[in-house]
Parts: sequence; C-alpha cells; structure tokens
Amino acid sequence: MILRDPVHGLVAFEGDEERLALALLDTREVQRLRRVRQLGLTSLVFPGAEHSRFAHAVGAAHVMSRLKARLAHVMDELPIDQRLDAQRGRDAFAAALLHDLGHGPFSHLFEEVVPDARPHEEWTVTVLLDPSTDVHRALRGFDPEMPARVADLITGRHELPWLASTISSVLDVDRCDYLLRDSHMTGVRYGIYDLDWLLRALTFGEITTTEGERRTVLAIEGRKGLPPIEGFFLARHFMYQQVYHHKATRAAESLVRAVLKRIRTVVREGTRAITSLPIALRRAALGDVPSLEDYLELDDAVLSSALASCEKDDDQVLADLARRFRNRVLPKTVPLPDGPECEPLWHEAHARAKEIATAHGLDPELHVWLDVADDVPYSDDTPDAGLWVVLRHHAPQRLGDMSFALEKLRNQRIVRPRLCFAPELRDAIVAAIEPTLARVR
Amino acid sequence: MILRDPVHGLVAFEGDEERLALALLDTREVQRLRRVRQLGLTSLVFPGAEHSRFAHAVGAAHVMSRLKARLAHVMDELPIDQRLDAQRGRDAFAAALLHDLGHGPFSHLFEEVVPDARPHEEWTVTVLLDPSTDVHRALRGFDPEMPARVADLITGRHELPWLASTISSVLDVDRCDYLLRDSHMTGVRYGIYDLDWLLRALTFGEITTTEGERRTVLAIEGRKGLPPIEGFFLARHFMYQQVYHHKATRAAESLVRAVLKRIRTVVREGTRAITSLPIALRRAALGDVPSLEDYLELDDAVLSSALASCEKDDDQVLADLARRFRNRVLPKTVPLPDGPECEPLWHEAHARAKEIATAHGLDPELHVWLDVADDVPYSDDTPDAGLWVVLRHHAPQRLGDMSFALEKLRNQRIVRPRLCFAPELRDAIVAAIEPTLARVR
Amino acid sequence: MILRDPVHGLVAFEGDEERLALALLDTREVQRLRRVRQLGLTSLVFPGAEHSRFAHAVGAAHVMSRLKARLAHVMDELPIDQRLDAQRGRDAFAAALLHDLGHGPFSHLFEEVVPDARPHEEWTVTVLLDPSTDVHRALRGFDPEMPARVADLITGRHELPWLASTISSVLDVDRCDYLLRDSHMTGVRYGIYDLDWLLRALTFGEITTTEGERRTVLAIEGRKGLPPIEGFFLARHFMYQQVYHHKATRAAESLVRAVLKRIRTVVREGTRAITSLPIALRRAALGDVPSLEDYLELDDAVLSSALASCEKDDDQVLADLARRFRNRVLPKTVPLPDGPECEPLWHEAHARAKEIATAHGLDPELHVWLDVADDVPYSDDTPDAGLWVVLRHHAPQRLGDMSFALEKLRNQRIVRPRLCFAPELRDAIVAAIEPTLARVR
Amino acid sequence: MILRDPVHGLVAFEGDEERLALALLDTREVQRLRRVRQLGLTSLVFPGAEHSRFAHAVGAAHVMSRLKARLAHVMDELPIDQRLDAQRGRDAFAAALLHDLGHGPFSHLFEEVVPDARPHEEWTVTVLLDPSTDVHRALRGFDPEMPARVADLITGRHELPWLASTISSVLDVDRCDYLLRDSHMTGVRYGIYDLDWLLRALTFGEITTTEGERRTVLAIEGRKGLPPIEGFFLARHFMYQQVYHHKATRAAESLVRAVLKRIRTVVREGTRAITSLPIALRRAALGDVPSLEDYLELDDAVLSSALASCEKDDDQVLADLARRFRNRVLPKTVPLPDGPECEPLWHEAHARAKEIATAHGLDPELHVWLDVADDVPYSDDTPDAGLWVVLRHHAPQRLGDMSFALEKLRNQRIVRPRLCFAPELRDAIVAAIEPTLARVR
Repeated sequence: MILRDPVHGLVAFEGDEERLALALLDTREVQRLRRVRQLGLTSLVFPGAEHSRFAHAVGAAHVMSRLKARLAHVMDELPIDQRLDAQRGRDAFAAALLHDLGHGPFSHLFEEVVPDARPHEEWTVTVLLDPSTDVHRALRGFDPEMPARVADLITGRHELPWLASTISSVLDVDRCDYLLRDSHMTGVRYGIYDLDWLLRALTFGEITTTEGERRTVLAIEGRKGLPPIEGFFLARHFMYQQVYHHKATRAAESLVRAVLKRIRTVVREGTRAITSLPIALRRAALGDVPSLEDYLELDDAVLSSALASCEKDDDQVLADLARRFRNRVLPKTVPLPDGPECEPLWHEAHARAKEIATAHGLDPELHVWLDVADDVPYSDDTPDAGLWVVLRHHAPQRLGDMSFALEKLRNQRIVRPRLCFAPELRDAIVAAIEPTLARVR
Repeated sequence: MILRDPVHGLVAFEGDEERLALALLDTREVQRLRRVRQLGLTSLVFPGAEHSRFAHAVGAAHVMSRLKARLAHVMDELPIDQRLDAQRGRDAFAAALLHDLGHGPFSHLFEEVVPDARPHEEWTVTVLLDPSTDVHRALRGFDPEMPARVADLITGRHELPWLASTISSVLDVDRCDYLLRDSHMTGVRYGIYDLDWLLRALTFGEITTTEGERRTVLAIEGRKGLPPIEGFFLARHFMYQQVYHHKATRAAESLVRAVLKRIRTVVREGTRAITSLPIALRRAALGDVPSLEDYLELDDAVLSSALASCEKDDDQVLADLARRFRNRVLPKTVPLPDGPECEPLWHEAHARAKEIATAHGLDPELHVWLDVADDVPYSDDTPDAGLWVVLRHHAPQRLGDMSFALEKLRNQRIVRPRLCFAPELRDAIVAAIEPTLARVR
Repeated sequence: MILRDPVHGLVAFEGDEERLALALLDTREVQRLRRVRQLGLTSLVFPGAEHSRFAHAVGAAHVMSRLKARLAHVMDELPIDQRLDAQRGRDAFAAALLHDLGHGPFSHLFEEVVPDARPHEEWTVTVLLDPSTDVHRALRGFDPEMPARVADLITGRHELPWLASTISSVLDVDRCDYLLRDSHMTGVRYGIYDLDWLLRALTFGEITTTEGERRTVLAIEGRKGLPPIEGFFLARHFMYQQVYHHKATRAAESLVRAVLKRIRTVVREGTRAITSLPIALRRAALGDVPSLEDYLELDDAVLSSALASCEKDDDQVLADLARRFRNRVLPKTVPLPDGPECEPLWHEAHARAKEIATAHGLDPELHVWLDVADDVPYSDDTPDAGLWVVLRHHAPQRLGDMSFALEKLRNQRIVRPRLCFAPELRDAIVAAIEPTLARVR
Repeated sequence: MILRDPVHGLVAFEGDEERLALALLDTREVQRLRRVRQLGLTSLVFPGAEHSRFAHAVGAAHVMSRLKARLAHVMDELPIDQRLDAQRGRDAFAAALLHDLGHGPFSHLFEEVVPDARPHEEWTVTVLLDPSTDVHRALRGFDPEMPARVADLITGRHELPWLASTISSVLDVDRCDYLLRDSHMTGVRYGIYDLDWLLRALTFGEITTTEGERRTVLAIEGRKGLPPIEGFFLARHFMYQQVYHHKATRAAESLVRAVLKRIRTVVREGTRAITSLPIALRRAALGDVPSLEDYLELDDAVLSSALASCEKDDDQVLADLARRFRNRVLPKTVPLPDGPECEPLWHEAHARAKEIATAHGLDPELHVWLDVADDVPYSDDTPDAGLWVVLRHHAPQRLGDMSFALEKLRNQRIVRPRLCFAPELRDAIVAAIEPTLARVR
C-alpha cells in the first residue's frame, strides 16, 4: 500500500502493516478523522493549516513503521522478553494509527469547554473496546485480544514500557509526526527537525528507576544523537511559541468557548431547542455523557454547521457570538507581564476589563477572558521523566546533563498571559489597564 | 500584512494591496471559501489534499502581486494607454483574490450534477455585484465602479486584454498557484515548476490578431524563458494524469453524483422532506435557481453534513448511497481502450455493466458510470490562443513553434475512458466485458 | 557507515555494502575523484556546480543500494539463475561506486581533445585490473575474481544483462544520481524527478529480443510507473537544454580545447619544455598513452594549476589563451539556425568567421569554433533499446508506446549549432554572418 | 544579471548592483575565489561541502541586496545623515561581494599555521587598495575614493556604524549566507534558519552606548522577530557543533598543519628546494611577507597540487605526511573531559600521547595534537555587543533579555577538547590515557 504524503513523501505499508492499514483506514471511525482538523482553529491564522487528524494518523503510523525498522537493528541487545515480536509489532502499528480516534471537533476545545466531559483518550479506548465499532471488529478480526492490547498500549499500560513510550512520551510517534506536519502546513518551518537522523540515533538503554528497578528504555545514541534530539525539542519549543500559542488562535478559541458556553446556558434553560444542535452537544451541555454513536457524529463539519445555524437563533447573545465566529470577528488581545510576581496584576486587569464589557452592555463572562498559555520546552523534573543518552563505556546519562542547550532550558516554564476581549472594547480596555501595566515596566 | 503559506513561504501585501487584503479577506464571502476544499474529493485519495479555496485565493493574489512587480520592469515598453496604473493594479489584485468566490461545494461537482445549474463563474459575478454582500460593500468602499470592473476583469471583458489574461488564460495566476499548491499538498511534486524564473521571463509582445488588429499580449522572453514555460505546461500535464484524473477521485465523484441525483429524485417526488437538506440544494433539485444567500450557505461542511443525514433517510436507496460515500466504499474502475475508434466499444461495455447492475438489484443509473476524462496539455489550435515568445530582432513567435517539447504535444488530446461501478459488481462486470475488451488487444 | 549528502540526505551503508565502502572509499584512486569536478567547467556558469565525481560516486552507490532493496521485493519472480545473490550484489555495489574511476580532469574534455586518447571507460577498467592500484587490492581482498567481475559489469559484459543495465543504460544509477545532483548544485531544479516513486515502480519483465531470445529486463510497472519515468526523461531533456548544453559552458569548453591544442603544438614542436606540465599531458600531446600512474596524477587541481603556469609561458599564443581561461574571458556565441537543411550555412558562417579572426591577427583554429550540441531525449530506435512497461495480463510493451509524452518525443534529435569566437571578434563576426543568417529567417 | 544558486534560487542584480557585479565578478581576484573552498577540508568529512568562496561571495552580495531592499521600507525613520544613499548602497554591495578577497587556501589554515602570517582581512584590504589589482581598477572606475571606502567598510571603520555591522557583526551578510550555504552543501540542514522572516524583522533602533552616545543600530522588530533571530543563533550553534568543530575535520586540519610545519622546517634548513613549492609558501615559511601577486597565486588547487608533489620529496617525514593527507589517512581523535577544572588533565594526556609517538618513532610535534575547539553561541558580554529588540512604546531591549532561549545560552562557552594523533598510535594512546581520563568519570 503506497500513499503520497506532503510531509513524508512516499508512505509505504507492507506485510502485516499493509494488512492492518487496509483493514483499519476504511473504518467509519478512522474516516471520521478526515473531518477533524489537526489544529482546530489554527487555520484562521495560518491559512494553510487545514490538515486533518486522518492525515496525521497515517503519518504517525508511518513514523512507527520506520521506528520499528530502525529498532530491528539493535533489538538483539535486549533480553528476549523485552523484544518486539510480530504481535507486539502489529499492536504498536495499530496504536500509532488509532491513537487519536476519540478526538472531538476543534481539537481540544470540545472537551475543555464542557465541564466533566470525558477526555478524548477515554473515548479512544471506548471506540477500541466497543463491539459495535468498525475498528473493534477489524482488530478482532486479527486477534480477539487485540482491541484490549491496543487500548492498553495507547493508555501506557503495557508489559514493555519502552514500547508504550513510542506511543505516548516526550518522544513519541505522535509528536514526531505532528511537529513536522504542523510546521509544513502552517508554512512556519520552525518545527522541522531531522527525523532521519533522529531515528538512526535511537537505541536501547537500561536504567535503574527510583524504585530500584532495572528498566529498558528507548535512548539516544552517544554524541551523534545529541544534535537531532536537541533539534527536536527546540523545534517543539518554537512551534509552541509561534503556532500553538499564537495570540490570534488563542483569541479564536476563547470565542468558540463563549459560543459553546452560551449554547450550554440556552440548553439548560430548557425553554426551547436550538435548531440543528447535534445530540452529543446537547447531552454534553446537560452534563450527560453522550452515547458513543452520538459522540462520533460530532466532527468539525457538523460543529461548524451547527454554529452556523446558531446565527439565526432566537437567543440574540448566542446569535451574535456565532456570527462573530463565522465572520472571523476575533477577539483582540493584550499581552500581560509574565513574571510570577505579576499574577495579581493579571486578575486586576481582568477585573477592570470585565467592568468595561458590562458598561458596554456585553456579558463579561462571554466577552472577556484571561488567557494564560504555558509550556515547559524540556522537562525531566521527575527522576523517571525525560530521555537518556547511551555512551560507550558509560552508564546511560540524562539528556539534560549531556546537551548544552537542553541543560539550560530544562524544567523552565514559559508563561504567556494575555487578556482577550471583543474588538469593540479595545480602546476602552487598553486605556483602563494601562496604569496597571505601567506599574511593572 | 504578512502571512505564512506552505507553498509560497512568506506572503506579504503592502500599500494598496494590503488595504484590499484587509478589507476583503474578512468578508463573509471570502471566509466561506475556507469551507470549500480546492480539490473536492481528492483528499479521499491523497490524504494531504485538504487545502481550501481560501488558501488558494491568498496564493493567487500573491502571484498577482509578484507578477505586477515583475511587469513594472517592462511596463515602459507599452503605449501609455496599455499600461497598468494604480486603479488597474487594484482591480487586478482584487480579481485574483476573488476569482473563485462563487464556487460551490465539492469543487465542480455541484454545478455539474444539477441540470441547468448556474456555473460558478456567474455566481462569482453575482457576489461581486449584489449590494447585499460584504465583498460588494468592501469594493465599493474603494470606488463605486470597482465591483463592476472587477467582475468584468474576471469574465475577461477588459480594455486591457493582456490584463484579463492574467486572471483567466492558459497562463494565469489561478493556474500558477493551484499547480504548485495541489502538487505540494497531494505530495506528488509533479506540479512543481519554476515560478521565480517564469515570472522573470514574462514580458510584452505585440501581435496581429486574425482580424488584423494589433494587440499587446503577455509573452515569454526569448530562449531563456522556454524551459520554465515548458516546465509549467508539463507540470500541468502531469497533474492531470496523476491527480485531477486519478481513477479513485473520478470514482468518488461518480458516487457523489449518484447521491445528488437520488436526492433530486426524492425531492421531486415531493412526498416528504429530506431532513437537514440545505435550502439551496432543495431549490436546485427542483430546477429553481437558489437565492444568493441560500447558495452561499452551501459549503463542503454543510453538504458533507447533509449527506451524513441522508444515511438515516427513509429512502433506502439514498441511505445506502450516502453510507457508501461516508464510509468510503468507493466505486471500482476498469480502464477502457482509448483510441478514437473505440468509442462504440465503451458504450457496449457500459450497456453490459448496466445489465449486470440490474441483475444484482441495483439501479444502473446510480451504480454504473461511463467516465471519460480528457485533456489537451497544450493547445493553440485557434490563431489567437496559446502563448507567444519574443526574441530580439524577430516578430513574436508562437510558443508551440519554438519549444521542442510543446511542438510535439500541442493540440494533442488525452482521453482516459473508464467504467465505474459499485464494488460488489466487480467480478461480474470484469467477466462480462472481458470479451468486448479482448477485441482491441 | 552513515554520510550526509546534500542530494539524498542520509546515506547509510550496512553489512556487505558498509564493508565495501570502508575498503574502497579511502583508496587513492577513489580519493582522486574528489579532485575531479562532476561538471567540468559548468561552475563558470552556474557558480554552485562545484561538486566532485567523488560525491557522485557515493550517490550512485546509494542509489544502487536502494535499487537492490527495491528489487529484493520482486526478485522471486525471476528464475533462480537470474537472481541477485550476495556476490552479485557486492559486485553491483562496487561497480556503482567505481564506475567513474578513470575519468580525466575537466569532465570529458581531456579525452576529447587528445586525438586517439583512450576513453575514460578504458582507464576505469585499467584501474580495476592493474594489481598496483589500491582499488584492485581492496577488491581482491574480498575475492580474487572480483576486480575482473566488476570490470565486466561496468563494461556491460555480464551474465545478467539486467544487472549490467543498472550500471549503464538509459536508466542507470549513474544518471539517477547525476540528474538530481547536477540539478541541485546548479540550482536549476529541472533535473529533479521522483526517485522514490521511480524505484518503487521498478520490476522485471521478460521480452523476446530481435534474435528471438527470451531475456529478463528491468521494466516499469504498469500505469503507476509512467509518470515517474516520464518525469525522469523530461528532467534529463531539460538538463541538456539548460545546463549541459548551456552556451557559456560550451564556449568555455571551446577555449580549454584551444589551450590544450596549443599545448600540443608547442610540445610537438619540441624546442622546449612547458614548465610544470604534468607528464601525462605531455605524453598524450605526443600521442603516447601515459602510464596509469601518470594518468592518475591528473585531476582538476593539477590541470588548472598547469594551465595557470602557461600564463607565463614564452609561447605568447599559449600564454594569451591560458590567461583568457584563468580570467574567464570566455568566447562569445551566436546561435545558428537548426534545421537539417541549414548545415551548409553553418560551414559558410564558420568560414566567414575564421577569415575575420585571421584578419584580426588571431589563429582561426584557436579562436573560432563551430559548436554543434545534440541530444536525443528518449531513443528506442533499435528494437533492443529503450525501456519496457509491464501491465497485468499483457506482454511487456515499449515505454514509447505507452507514454503520451515520450511517444511524441522519441527518436527526435535536438541540434543546437552555435558559432563560438573570441569576444573581441563579436561585432565583426555578427556583421559578417548576418546576411547569411538572414537567408533562413 | 540573473544567476542560479543552489541556496537562494534565483539571484538577480539590477541597476547599480548589476553594474558592480558585472565589473567585479570577472576580475582575477574574484575569480580566484572559485579556487578556494569555503569550508577548507570539511569536504573530507561531508563529501558535498565542495562549494567555493566565490559562490559564497555571490550569496553574500545577494543577501546584501535583499537587506537593502528591506531597510528601504524603514529608512525614513532615520535622521537623513544616517540613511543609505546611492553611494553608500554601492559601497555596501561591493563590500559584501569582496569581503573574502584575501582568503588563503584551505580556509583559515594557511594563516594559522605560519607564525606572524598576515591575517586574511589585511590581504583583503591590500587587494582593494593596491592599484595593480583588477578589483582596485574596477572600483576606481566607479569613483576614485571607492576602494578606500569599501576597505573601510570591511574593516568596520565607517561613518554609519549600523552599515558596517551588516558586513561584520554577530548578524551580518557573511553569516547569513554561509550558515545556509554550509548547511545546504554538507547536507546537515542544521544551519537552515528563516532568512525571509529575519529580513522582514529587521528595523532600526536608537541606543545609548556606554560612553553615553546615542547610536543608530540595526535591530529586531518586536516579538515577531524573536523566533527567526533565535533560529539564526541556534542554527549557528548547531553548525559549530556538527560541522565546523567536527572531529574528523579538526583531525584533518591538524594533519595539514603538520605538513605545512614540516615544509617550513625543510625550507628553513635550506639545504635544498622543495619541487613545485609556490613562492608565497616558501616566503611565508621563511618568515617573510609574500608579495601580493605571489600571495594571490595561492589557492586550494595550487596548494593541493604542491602537497601532492611533496609525496615524492626526499624528506621522508614530509613525504609521509603528504601521503597521509592525500590518501585521507586522517588522525584519530579521543574526546577529553570538558569542565574548566580538567585543563591540567588535557596536558597530562597530551604529554603521555607524545611519549608514545616518540616510542613509535614518530615526531610527536607532527603526530600528536591537543585540539581545543571552543565557541560562544550567543555573546553579549560587553555592553555594546549583541543585538537589540525594538518594541512599540518601549526603549530598545537587549535580545538576551527578551529571548527565552538566548537568555539561557548567552555568554556560555562550549569547549570541546580532543587529543588527535596518527591512527597507528590509537590503541597505545587510548590505553595510556585511560587511567587519566578515568579520574574524572
């Protein structure tokens, strides 16, 4: 099975992997990922960023395929019970392809906005285990225990911790694909690192955990591997700065949160139905868990279409918010000072801005947000976290101790606080918070 | 105004162009293009091809901006009345940005499938001229005559024929962008030609039309310009072969045509409404022209969502077709022989296949299609068509006379006939038409 | 063994290939290729084109390595005696790495300019077979027969004709690498084709030769393989037009030919030695075959250095020519009409130009050249030439019959005649030949 | 004037720049740069790195051309006397093109190895000012003062300090080109940063120097400019780690140093001449300053050819060293611990290794080296160093205070000490220094 991919070029699956790809790619649940964008609202800011979680799933599976091919060269360094056999290889490939199955529309927004919503990881497990899904049936066709094993692998519970780490860790096939893909599609290039060389530099190491256990881990080979892995973490850092935490994306997300919040209010008031509201959204708004079927009906197209309908809703607040989103009347942002001592000041500015919204006749809970984006570019603050480097004649060493650049950055938190608000409030809010902000200049 | 773009890298609009971009990009009608994929169903085959007409519109405007910058270097060769002034420059930029405004969902499918549907070019003109649209208001804000002038430019009626040719001709900003973009996003690379060098090679020539008029035309400069322009047309040829006429895309299009056809039948029977059917689609099915507002409600998301609803329709034929599309149960294809003498054979094979569909209890009009894709890679079969090459000390010459490669290819038509049918019919149809096909081997 | 390469990215040799690369790359004879530019004088025109035959040798070996990996997937379609075993695999890899060993300096110039010079292919064989070379010793270290087998493979005499074709044919690892590399380094991009996809499309076919023998050939798989192979031949065509036959490169070559010719004259006059003239050059000038050792002393650095010394030679004609070359006072060119009927006209123009040179006090044999570059982009004019395409249920078909583009181009010869002459002659020559050229306009 | 470039694509010089390029590129002194590789011996390690200082000079001029075009947009923010006028624009372009004129062969090696050798910057000034050079004449043809002004600009003495900084500073056109070019040609990609965006982010700022003067400086615009400038410095850091300080390159350089040292000894002993030794090298070996003419005779080809001749020298030590170099028998390296406290240990290890060389009958001064590569990725340790960032409503701030990543890295020195030695000494040296090294593990 050969596919073209804008990021990886030629993607080829063969043998077991081809059989799995053929069986899984055409399932309803995987096809649904075509209708969920990888980067949610980011295409409002980077017009090229229209790629779907489907394309990413194929990419993650491709990286897994290459990673397995690479590790085959060093597999015989491992005790036999730690090695990848055919079954584990299939499980790993399936897990890579299916790791995002439970994702809701608009990236993480949906689950964030509904209190007590099930996280998407749980939905992924449900899709794998529910006998009614095509994916479950397809996996069961290979082996009755396969759905459960793949679910375990995705949730990190696996007899081979190193294999689980390829699905979810600081260096996993998910990240390996999305950094390249998001970078490529946004056009920023900052996320481009050297995947070829990084895969070459992968090896195994044996460390002793804090509990004194010996454990096989994926590791980086010697000094040769430092540059690509440094490049990887710096690429990730740049993507957070430039894309994932871009102010306009964050502003758009705030607006969608407001629309969903207002939908929830209207639904809970219960006096009337919102036309064309997907059932899952209604259920979630009422605090219920939607059925799997209803949940899977949700995708970017359905949600976007539902929001479109809200433009004509009788609730004028809702209609107004929906119209803003549809026509890209995005909130404006003002950066706030980011020292740890500044937090009281954020809240002061936030409070002032809300007063102004009220004075302008706007609901402050729907039109003013304190948005605090934060990220740690490379963390190894717990003894078991982070990556290890293997040098000849030496015990494995922590990556943070070996890399000049990462040593300086590790466990450093970047915080980017901003005030977001409806654009018509800009002048008034800027004037009002100016004295507050001036105190820290 | 600076944007990132996966194809062109940094896109910057300045001065008049920035003012236009700011005023136009956020209009409802341009924002709607975010919800219409450039390549319709092609992402079913090339997972990366998820880019929208919005990204393409920005790209086409960028190419226009660069083309204007290039032509400024040779503008003084023209008589003053043939030159680009500020107003014409703004019109050209706006026309590039807005040339696709009237596109319906799923690329050209929508207009193809509804008999007597207005072509998307007419809808584009309507959007420009209708005083109710944001785009009209934005253009009028620059100059009351601007909407009409831009509409004229897009439809090729302009006092400067060479300027109209930059919007629509064998070498226009539309093609210049979409070849690169489609190539980039599908991952095939075949559409990548040398835009930098091609722009450099543009100049003006003066030809005598068949009516004996002298006319200023965009032309290619001397021998230096031949390779990039040859590359351009060969890139286009490859993209047709590899992407636009890909068998699986064509098969998917056949299926969507069937769904829309069945919707039309159900609507016309009129016994009951199809839930969630967009008004414009209902109107079109009834043979009426939808209102502009209703038409613009249509986009890929809305149509995809409507097709989703059809899966549960009471009409079992419709529900079945919708389900096939949603789950990518695409028709299969068999290539037919492509000599001109083979046409009777196509119809014979088509008739046989329809009989088999009927025998399997499937409606032959909805499950068997004769699909004939065709293209002429480079045509200059009318005296005024094609491109011209300017050499020092010579009258302009036809590109087809100067280029070794294009001379061989010009006015050659490539025809790719295929039979498409529901996958469960494959074995029976292949067996049935085998004797027919064998006759030409 | 891992190398970085600007064209292929990561180049990795493993197992037998690693052992061969380690043993061969550091030999004197392979290291010498670092000092021979792949494109001779082309860097005078494309400043980036400074890559050596060493880098190309590594690239060709890399393509061979990938080709072997690809063919392993279809190898079991062959009768056992036609398959690649470990020994043949080593031979093929070594042949790819060593195919250019005998190349003289300045690309093909050296052998062209010396009458009766041995062609570089013969020198390659000599290097392989001569027991005094490092390369011979290294190969013999693997297997006493290996030098002879590799030499046979390079010269096309091999029990597996399909394997010999991977070293030298219309589609061989040499071309596969140099098109990409030359394109990349000149910056023209026209030579970039889709190597990944082309390798994927390789398979085996069985044809019947004109002698009625059945023969296994490398072939292209079905319709899927047509675009990459068409892209390959068109890339080659563009590179000839744009780079290999570039007028300024051809002009520079004419000049070097003149320098070498004058050296020959001076050497043959025998009255005195030219300082610092490499022995091999002196021997060749005298019509003798240089010793292998002396021949291998020649490289771009040595020859360039020798030409530099000639600037101070007592022979003023030689000194002048050498100075022109060193300071890039290149000949000018005028294109001549290229129809077959125009040949007499070329000679007429050439004769006129020589008269003018004489009138200017310049030796016409050293300052005026009729330069006729020609190429056939895709030829299959003999029944055994060209490539074959394999389709399911069909006998292999000729590529030229299957490809729309190549069918039009096949066996078409492109001829680009030019007059080259010292720049100070330009005005006089252009004026003198103008009437001649005007006759064909 | 249009050129192709593998790094920048299309390079176009127009107007004054075209006139300068035409006049300067064909001078003997600029043409000589074709024969000096940008990266000296690096192509021994990265086979693709064969690019010359000529290609780099064109690239640096291209970056200057783009930088001027960018700064034209913000030039009116400057007081008139600080602006770029036509004359200063020409000077800047010429300086960019000519900044490397005085470079000797094998990169910096030549000047390093000869005690009291004039640094290449002084040779550059000499070439510019000496009336006998083509370059001097060409510049004087534009304006009699131009040679002196360009020389001043290159040496940093210019009435516009900001303009001088574009030629030589932490962010200059030299670095802007070479990071991209070296990265591209080695194939490592680590040096690729976002030049388009970086140029866009350039602006002017006004700072107060430590002497209390107000000064116009090139600066980075706001938060938008941080990512590309961070990317730039990280790219530089990676290139040092991966390419410039690569152990095999450093080892090769040590070997060439030994050859040159031995040549010096032989020359100074004075008993006989070394055949084919370039005069400049002989003069330098004797401690004299070569004439400009002799100095310019030196290039990579000449030096490489001279080293080749040494293989046959009667001095067996010299012949042996030359042979090692020619056949790439490179020294081996062992990394030494790099804490500041480790320095005594380096010397201890070095001393032990020299004893071993002696014991093996090798001259320890020619076969064992302590090689300490060091670099500071981003330094702003003096108040006037480093770059500035301009934010609206704020005074310019130091880049190191604004950038999360650079704040962590600034003024950090990376030291990579290694022991280099002839390969036959490896086992003995490793065994001998092992106990020493073990002390710090």
